[in-house]
Formats: sequence, structure tokens, C-alpha cells
Amino acid sequence: MGGAILVLSGPSGAGKSTIIENASSKIGDYYFSISTTTREPREGERDGVDYHFVSKEEFEEDIKAGAFLEYATVHGNYYGTSINPVKKALKSGKLVIFDIDIQGHRLVRAKIGDLVTSVFITPPTLSELKRRLYSRSTDKNSIIERRVNNAKEEIKAICEFDFIIINDEIERASNEFITISNASRLKLSKKELKKLIVNWENN
Amino acid sequence: MGGAILVLSGPSGAGKSTIIENASSKIGDYYFSISTTTREPREGERDGVDYHFVSKEEFEEDIKAGAFLEYATVHGNYYGTSINPVKKALKSGKLVIFDIDIQGHRLVRAKIGDLVTSVFITPPTLSELKRRLYSRSTDKNSIIERRVNNAKEEIKAICEFDFIIINDEIERASNEFITISNASRLKLSKKELKKLIVNWENN
Repeated sequence: MGGAILVLSGPSGAGKSTIIENASSKIGDYYFSISTTTREPREGERDGVDYHFVSKEEFEEDIKAGAFLEYATVHGNYYGTSINPVKKALKSGKLVIFDIDIQGHRLVRAKIGDLVTSVFITPPTLSELKRRLYSRSTDKNSIIERRVNNAKEEIKAICEFDFIIINDEIERASNEFITISNASRLKLSKKELKKLIVNWENN
Repeated sequence: MGGAILVLSGPSGAGKSTIIENASSKIGDYYFSISTTTREPREGERDGVDYHFVSKEEFEEDIKAGAFLEYATVHGNYYGTSINPVKKALKSGKLVIFDIDIQGHRLVRAKIGDLVTSVFITPPTLSELKRRLYSRSTDKNSIIERRVNNAKEEIKAICEFDFIIINDEIERASNEFITISNASRLKLSKKELKKLIVNWENN
């Protein structure tokens, strides 16, 4: 069986990183896709770990070269997913996990939807999101406000996702993520389905 | 969280009953929907366990009364799913499992698709299906041939299903079924999503 894709979206403050960390030993062999961005690194963010940080010029060259599976502009910065590492991981049968926004989800689903399972992770309420973002306090207030406004828009799009995880209790949320990840691996691409039908009929 | 629906389809001989039996202690609280049919019971089949066996007249009265979630005619016999026990099970938060054919799957998906996860279970090949049906030998050859021809048609529709389980190894197939069942419970209905959004924004 080939690989599969799991798209994770949700506001910062939803607990996505913690959930992936908790689940990582229980979801088999996966590849976490690292996005490329032109925004400034936040304090503590590392190039090649949290993001590939590049200049606007480099990013636009890659766009021209067709190197992105999806890309979008958010608050004046580019964010994108390079195709090549994803292809390689899928070929080796891995589950590829994307942490992208709702725009990215739409683009990936439009391109390779047959391989995609998607999950939106959110804190239980808007006020809890605010509490988490302010208590984390790695960002300026203006950035936090932008994130909150973003989240208000994003929550309206949750119907587009296969699953919603409400992260009010980290252990339950992590277990739900494990269950969804394991099921997402069982998805077959259109190509695999066609092969299966031909093989089934002729044997 | 409310209930959810898991639709199981696949030819007789696919091993659906064995898989459900193997999984039954590991998928939480579920309700197995028993279909109603006008066909003759096969040897060993029990009324109210394998099917609700009714007369053509009774079935047609129930159709008029709007009692079916879905029904169809297969080889001159009616098959249908009564709404009421399904509603009751969903209300109490159970996973409702349907063992219905591809026509039934289409009808259920059209009516309450937001709650549905679907799985097609099949033996690995056509010749293996034949081997299983003939070795089971509870049916006349003419009936087996009809089942085989049916399966040849059904396999073409597998792209309509969320998941395919190839039952060449019963333990792996059962584990896949457990994984899919557990994920299917995490689906939210449109109604639940709307509630969630309103609650999220106002708290």
C-alpha cells in the first residue's frame, strides 16, 4: 500500500505540536512536512525544523519553477509546501503530515484529494484560545490579535474537514489524533483502487 | 457527542460477519442494524437475528408508511432498513453498523451522508470469492453464480467508499476494521458542527 496524507489545521494555541509529540510513537512511520515561509522566525524557531525560512526572492523563484504543492500569502508573508520531499515520503509508504492553514487544505485537497484525510484542531472556545495565546506570550499583542481574528474566520470553515478535534483535554485529543492517523493510512488512491479492481477481476 | 454510522458492504463470502465478531469487543458501544427482507430465509438463518423476514405485503405497507431509511429490490426481493431503531441508537450515542449493498450505501449517503463512514470488504480476488462461496455450499449453484455476478458489478463501485478492506488475512482485516470503526465515531454531524461553532464563538 502506498502512502497517505494527513492535513492538520487549526489556530496557533490549539495544541497541534503537543498532540503530534504525544502521538508520534503510536502512529507508525510518518514524515512531517516542513513548510517554507518568508516570514521572520519567531523567538526559538529553528530553520529546517519549524520552517524553512527563505527570502521573498527565493520563494518566488520556487513558485516559477513549480516547486510547490500549494502556497499562499498570509498577512503579507508567503507560506508553501515543496512537492519533492512529499513525493519521496509517499513513495516509501509513509504517512505525510501537513500543518497548514485552511487555504492550504483547500489547495491540497483540490490537487490530491484522494489521498487526504483532514483534521481541524481547536481549543474548546474563543476565550480559551485567547487565554492560551496571551499566556504563551511569545508574540506581540498585535500579532496575537491577528491570530485571534484569523481563528474566528477559520472556525467557520470546519465543515470542510473530515474530522474536528476539540482540544480541551490533551490526552483525549491525542488519542483521537492517533485513531484518525491510523485510519487515514488505510485510504487508497484512485490509482491503487484501479489496480485493485483489475487485479481482483483477473485473478 | 452524538452517534455515527458505519456502512459495511461487500459480497457474501467477504468475511463481514467474522470481522464484526472479531472486532465487537474493541469498538465500543454499537448497534448492528438488522435489515428487513422479503426473501426466503436460508438454512440456519434466524428471524430477528440475521434479518427480519416479512411478507411482500407487509414490506409494501411499511414503504407506504415511510418506515424505511432505504430500501431496494435485489433479484426480485425487497431489502430495507427501518428508520426507528436507527434513530434511537444514534440518539443514545451508539455507532450504528449497516451491512447493506452498494445501492443501500448510495441511498443512506444521500440521506444522512454527514454521519456516514463506509467500508467495502472483499476477498482478495474473484477466484478466491468463488472458492469461498462453493466451499461454504449452503447455497444452490444458481444462487452462487448470481452472487458472483453481483460481486463483479459491485467491485466497480468501490471508489464510492471511504475505505476498502481486502480480507486475505482475517486478523489484519479485523484490525483495520477496528481502526476505521473507532475513527468513524469521531465524525460530527452538520448539526453538531453548527452547535460547536456557535458555542466556540460565544464562550
